[in-house]
Amino acid sequence: MSDDRRAEPLEPLETAGSLGALDAEQRGGTGDMSPARFREAGHATVDAMADYLARVRDFPVMPPVEPGSLRALFAPAPPEDPEPIAAMLDDVARLVEPNTTHWQHPGFMAYFATTASGPGVLAEMLVAALGANAMLWRTSPVATELEEVVVDWLRVALGLPEAFGGLLTDTASTSSLIALGAAREAAGTRAAAKGIAGRADVPRLRVYASAEAHSSIEKACMTLGLGRESLVRIATDDVLAMDPDALSEAISIDRVAGLRPIAVVATLGTTSSTAIDPVGAAADIAAREGLWLHVDAAYGGAAAVVPERRGPFTGWERADSIVVNPHKWLFTPLDASLLLSRRMHVLRDAFSLVPEYLRTLDRATPVLDYNEYTPVLGRRFRALKLWFVVRYFGLAGIRRRIDAHCAWAAELASWVEADPDFELLAPVPFSTVCLRARPCALAGREDAPEVRADLDDLNERLIEAVNATGEVFLSHTRLRDRFTIRVAIGSLHTTRDDVVRAWEILRTEAARLAADGTQGPAGT
Amino acid sequence: MSDDRRAEPLEPLETAGSLGALDAEQRGGTGDMSPARFREAGHATVDAMADYLARVRDFPVMPPVEPGSLRALFAPAPPEDPEPIAAMLDDVARLVEPNTTHWQHPGFMAYFATTASGPGVLAEMLVAALGANAMLWRTSPVATELEEVVVDWLRVALGLPEAFGGLLTDTASTSSLIALGAAREAAGTRAAAKGIAGRADVPRLRVYASAEAHSSIEKACMTLGLGRESLVRIATDDVLAMDPDALSEAISIDRVAGLRPIAVVATLGTTSSTAIDPVGAAADIAAREGLWLHVDAAYGGAAAVVPERRGPFTGWERADSIVVNPHKWLFTPLDASLLLSRRMHVLRDAFSLVPEYLRTLDRATPVLDYNEYTPVLGRRFRALKLWFVVRYFGLAGIRRRIDAHCAWAAELASWVEADPDFELLAPVPFSTVCLRARPCALAGREDAPEVRADLDDLNERLIEAVNATGEVFLSHTRLRDRFTIRVAIGSLHTTRDDVVRAWEILRTEAARLAADGTQGPAGT
Repeated sequence: MSDDRRAEPLEPLETAGSLGALDAEQRGGTGDMSPARFREAGHATVDAMADYLARVRDFPVMPPVEPGSLRALFAPAPPEDPEPIAAMLDDVARLVEPNTTHWQHPGFMAYFATTASGPGVLAEMLVAALGANAMLWRTSPVATELEEVVVDWLRVALGLPEAFGGLLTDTASTSSLIALGAAREAAGTRAAAKGIAGRADVPRLRVYASAEAHSSIEKACMTLGLGRESLVRIATDDVLAMDPDALSEAISIDRVAGLRPIAVVATLGTTSSTAIDPVGAAADIAAREGLWLHVDAAYGGAAAVVPERRGPFTGWERADSIVVNPHKWLFTPLDASLLLSRRMHVLRDAFSLVPEYLRTLDRATPVLDYNEYTPVLGRRFRALKLWFVVRYFGLAGIRRRIDAHCAWAAELASWVEADPDFELLAPVPFSTVCLRARPCALAGREDAPEVRADLDDLNERLIEAVNATGEVFLSHTRLRDRFTIRVAIGSLHTTRDDVVRAWEILRTEAARLAADGTQGPAGT
Repeated sequence: MSDDRRAEPLEPLETAGSLGALDAEQRGGTGDMSPARFREAGHATVDAMADYLARVRDFPVMPPVEPGSLRALFAPAPPEDPEPIAAMLDDVARLVEPNTTHWQHPGFMAYFATTASGPGVLAEMLVAALGANAMLWRTSPVATELEEVVVDWLRVALGLPEAFGGLLTDTASTSSLIALGAAREAAGTRAAAKGIAGRADVPRLRVYASAEAHSSIEKACMTLGLGRESLVRIATDDVLAMDPDALSEAISIDRVAGLRPIAVVATLGTTSSTAIDPVGAAADIAAREGLWLHVDAAYGGAAAVVPERRGPFTGWERADSIVVNPHKWLFTPLDASLLLSRRMHVLRDAFSLVPEYLRTLDRATPVLDYNEYTPVLGRRFRALKLWFVVRYFGLAGIRRRIDAHCAWAAELASWVEADPDFELLAPVPFSTVCLRARPCALAGREDAPEVRADLDDLNERLIEAVNATGEVFLSHTRLRDRFTIRVAIGSLHTTRDDVVRAWEILRTEAARLAADGTQGPAGT
């Protein structure tokens, strides 16, 4: 960082054996590890990290362990006396690495990937050492102002208008909770001040989202006191996108019943199948009905970095709020969620609370204190990660990677379609493929009840067999009540070869299950 | 980590100049930084971190910058092309370090300190590289089970009974929100399912906390739909502790008025003055009234690690939930908040939501999925930090450090008391001293309106002058409507000498202001 970077001579790593002994502060001090000692231990830790990344492919993606089997590996009581750092680093290799699910494994194609990219991890290291709490401008001016900068970078990268401000939160759960909290306020409830219980002027509130919307929307309704019942699940069409006519109708019915609609949530890239709600139509309805429009693009939004892929996003610029998670498909380590809004003042109305001990008295200009926009006070300096990630890859590099993932997914989808023993269960607008094994002998009879059950059972056994190889890790969902295997491509560690291999494993294991099936009773 | 740690030869740092050039992946690849490149960049980053820690004392604790002045330092638009890592590291030294508030500076005595301790930072590095999301057991079995282990270690360390389970969250804001969400559910509202608006069977709900309780309690009431008005602020006694008789009375009045009390919050170590509510009396009242008792010991709870300091905590073992923040006085980098509860199933009732795509199908034994206890789904692997911090210092070492901070605070308090031109404004049960300058000429006339205003003004100018030295950074509050300067000792970087120096600066600056005051109109 500084010109005197070499001020302290770097100890050769051969002496790292000294990490096996306690340091002076541990033995009787009241301070922290010294900077010199930290330097030594930090170098050993970086080697451990690089070693892990170099051989992450050698681990089974998900460890073959049973729930509850790991607790006994660890000391049941906290140690009274200090232990040397070398013991902890050894234990990470011995106890932690073999027993974690390897999100950085090239075969991790479950859920949505989170790439802890090199530049993102370097930034996390610096953030940890700086140790600043970005709750107020004054508790780290640069954390606040760099957050303003990178939020705007991301807005520009996504092709959204200047009217959008925003902030970084931990996860999409929080971003969507903030958005719906703002919607609750925007509906004139004065909920932040007065609450929503026991008020004659506040009836039951309603939020509308597709049947395929993520659980975080429903969770936000629970937390905000709206309740799970407040979330009206709108039917989807044949590509699993929200039906705008059904949305209009549901709102009308609720209004007649005396309930108060407050928000519409459109999802651009659902979790189950990456379906895309018609956001333009949703924006029309929200505008007509005076409702807050929140767009959940936690995963799919990243694709808007590629101008040629912005088609399905047309209309999202009319949203009141949008969430896109850099820790999903923008290669940023967990946690980093981007919440954009063109009505930041409403977010502030919903969440601002400034006690005396958080007031800034010694500055003439108004300060931006991001905690006023969130349910939490303490905030990590997440902006540094985005600053590193965007600069390291460049927008061109990010586009190239997103394009590659989409291309590989399209290829996989074409292989699935061409295989008589498999079928695609949803379109592939981004980089996630929903499929199942469907032996060709059963083609045309998929919806017969006994075949339906057999196919569910077959695919449940298939995903278990595939994951048991340790080479690839997939997750499942249900689409139109069919057990569905998801292949979610999105890690920077995944190559086209890994996708080819995943498909090979799926076919091999399906064939093996089919062969087993002919030798015994069906379904066993 | 592994035996082949030296498998790749460490490049001498003199070649780190290669970080000034783009690497192959940046130029045209679709992958991440290679492990070899990460190793090189990681070593350079560790040096930057150690250099920063070695000279953090040379920075003014809070940078002398004005709001809005930093944005222009950064590129207004995101870069199209990739940049070399060396550029980013240089920019951290050039743009970030001089413009952050230095939470790791020995003179940081504002708010409550967060020590990003050496072992904690090393663990953050490993957590970032592992890049696992601890949302489900299956998404990182060891993250879940190690969390069970360290949560229990902390329970034992705090002297709490086995009936308490718990989890790690980001901050006390979230921990208290979860606790009050559970209280809302425990009151029979079925809020998670049905919401609390527009229901004839759910009147306005009430939460009771001292007038000195932290804003996070009020924020949780806002978020949960109870509203700021639901929080009843109970009067405090002459040591700023909640008055139990006033609590009983407030509950009775609300019951008569048809409101529904749901929770009592007792604070053990308030943010303003570290006052200690009578938790035993609060537990009696909560038990009698059938209310959830939540204990906010976010800062003070750490002192319970020292058995001799557990006196004020007597009765907290009867709480339904307790929050203690390891990222405050347990030397763990932000973020890490410990939420303990003896009614974990109620937390789960309030926050559990399991969609199909998060279900675990391939394990016979039930799994513990921590996301079911929180408003957020994604979770960082925070347990590793606690595992490192507790092992590195040992419980004995943690106790020694907490004892030292308390002893230094007691010394400072004695110096304040002995100085005719200063006064203590609150007792000092932990490591935070509340004081103000009160020129001896004004003794006995403190409560005359014009003196009151003058003293507020004097102390506002005093803290500004003290902070302007850059050697120490203090924050303020108001106690009994008096402008109060807080000296919060709690960083592992702070030594007794730093406390001595802080006191010297306070006295010097107060004397200087007094001298200035004799040369011009009062209050200018």
